[in-house]
Amino acid sequence: MIKELQQYIVTELEKLHFPTTPSNLYDPIAYTIALGGKRLRPVLVLLGCELVGGKIEAAIHPAIGIELFHNFTLLHDDIMDNAPLRRNKPTVHAKWNTNIAILSGDVLFTIASQQISKAAAPVLAEVLHVYFKVSVDVCEGQQLDMDFESLDNLQIADYIEMIRLKTAVLLGASLQIGALCGNATAETAAQLYEIGVELGLAFQLQDDLLDAFGNEETFGKQVGGDIISNKKTWLKLRALEKANAMQQQQLTNWYSLKEFDAREKVNAVKQIFTDLDLPNEANNLIHQYYTSALSKLESLNVSSSGKTGILEFTDSLKMRVH
Amino acid sequence: MIKELQQYIVTELEKLHFPTTPSNLYDPIAYTIALGGKRLRPVLVLLGCELVGGKIEAAIHPAIGIELFHNFTLLHDDIMDNAPLRRNKPTVHAKWNTNIAILSGDVLFTIASQQISKAAAPVLAEVLHVYFKVSVDVCEGQQLDMDFESLDNLQIADYIEMIRLKTAVLLGASLQIGALCGNATAETAAQLYEIGVELGLAFQLQDDLLDAFGNEETFGKQVGGDIISNKKTWLKLRALEKANAMQQQQLTNWYSLKEFDAREKVNAVKQIFTDLDLPNEANNLIHQYYTSALSKLESLNVSSSGKTGILEFTDSLKMRVH
Repeated sequence: MIKELQQYIVTELEKLHFPTTPSNLYDPIAYTIALGGKRLRPVLVLLGCELVGGKIEAAIHPAIGIELFHNFTLLHDDIMDNAPLRRNKPTVHAKWNTNIAILSGDVLFTIASQQISKAAAPVLAEVLHVYFKVSVDVCEGQQLDMDFESLDNLQIADYIEMIRLKTAVLLGASLQIGALCGNATAETAAQLYEIGVELGLAFQLQDDLLDAFGNEETFGKQVGGDIISNKKTWLKLRALEKANAMQQQQLTNWYSLKEFDAREKVNAVKQIFTDLDLPNEANNLIHQYYTSALSKLESLNVSSSGKTGILEFTDSLKMRVH
Repeated sequence: MIKELQQYIVTELEKLHFPTTPSNLYDPIAYTIALGGKRLRPVLVLLGCELVGGKIEAAIHPAIGIELFHNFTLLHDDIMDNAPLRRNKPTVHAKWNTNIAILSGDVLFTIASQQISKAAAPVLAEVLHVYFKVSVDVCEGQQLDMDFESLDNLQIADYIEMIRLKTAVLLGASLQIGALCGNATAETAAQLYEIGVELGLAFQLQDDLLDAFGNEETFGKQVGGDIISNKKTWLKLRALEKANAMQQQQLTNWYSLKEFDAREKVNAVKQIFTDLDLPNEANNLIHQYYTSALSKLESLNVSSSGKTGILEFTDSLKMRVH
């Protein structure tokens, strides 16, 4: 069922028509969309709609809008993070240049908003309210992420707040917008937002865990990227919190080296993470978020048959290896 | 009357409340808005509303939205143009950095769109349609502007199309959105768009002329900036079209020099422009756009008292020295 929804999204994305000129503006957009991805967020929009008894066609344009918005944020984030690759292909600013990446991102955000604006008239204002709120939140999350790079004594709570804004709220808003398109009450839609946020937190923490402990072959990209770049993830912050004096010194040493063998650093830091039992601890935390989300879903006042889709979606998230 | 509308805009802009954190995200926005400006576009929104018999309060949020959108485009354009100054103050990317300028621009675009979305429910979809269309157009105009830098044999028609997209359509959309908020028919609103586009073309050509021939004291910034940077304006393109062999060679020489005395270059190029009678020709072209706009306004099927505001606005544009 999730696969069918993904296929519906892909088909609709292929139907999008972009002008051919100026090619420096539109080629990067077509390129970005063609890079693919799991299309999780638009699937959540459709699931949110279906869950409350709506027809998914009523949510398809906002679903496409959410996916395009997500791609816009990746495009601009990649400039800010100076990332050379995205899904194993050159990023837009690397393939073209920074100016083209800024401007094609701006247009992509606009095109995303045009799709969102196709929500039915009775729910349009409320859908826009949720969409622009989440757009502000995601920017705040990205700013915090950048600010954190030069911040000492970062707490785990700060990190959780950052990933809530940067990643989780968009999953929440996806469910909420879908529900609104399916004519849910404001209350049900708001409850779905909370469920989506918890799924999103679990999702991002899993991402952090996979980045360090994923299987290179199934993960599809270099394992240990976060460790190599000293990224302040949950794993790093929790390790610094939990480490004994010797581990503390080893971590500080690895994180301060200017030159190092990447594989050696990754293995050494992972060994400390493992010695500190962090993979188990992280998995427990992830499990807590999933459990909390599912218990909120359970108590949601909608027909239980509607819940099947989100249950299937959650299962596939839990099992993911990339 | 225009002054009162400007004051209303300024008061409403001051009422905008931004969060205090993350300060790297919101400080640049407050800074950008405080830089000031003539607030022409939001005044046009209010005038468009008034013209069709609407109450300006019905258009104030979209008016603020248009002004914020304009400021967002300046913020991102300044990165792309590598501009150090805006209104004699450091640009955001110069004062903070490029990443902060990208991201605070993204948030500013979002906040602009939130204001636009406050249009009344019956006109909301149509207002959004005009707004996002013009947003795409403005990005296309900026891309053409950048593409033109490395393009030989640029024609005047290409340049006019570029300034139409980059500058003029936003003045058109301002009038159109205002009219829609005042419950104009779609036809009247579309006619106002055309009027605004012509005002915008006249406005930008005047800008080009003032940049070369303005009075340094009243212009408020360095005269000749376009000449110094070899910017392909109407003046440059028309000069290359009209110049005799000797003037052609002199122009080509000045435009190819890597090192030069700025004042000497400006004076020499201006002298050729003057010898070619370009100030008069430009003024005639500007006059044609104004006349065409006013004749369309004249034939517009609304009460003549409503037209006073736009007439006053047009007069003040015509007389401007900065």
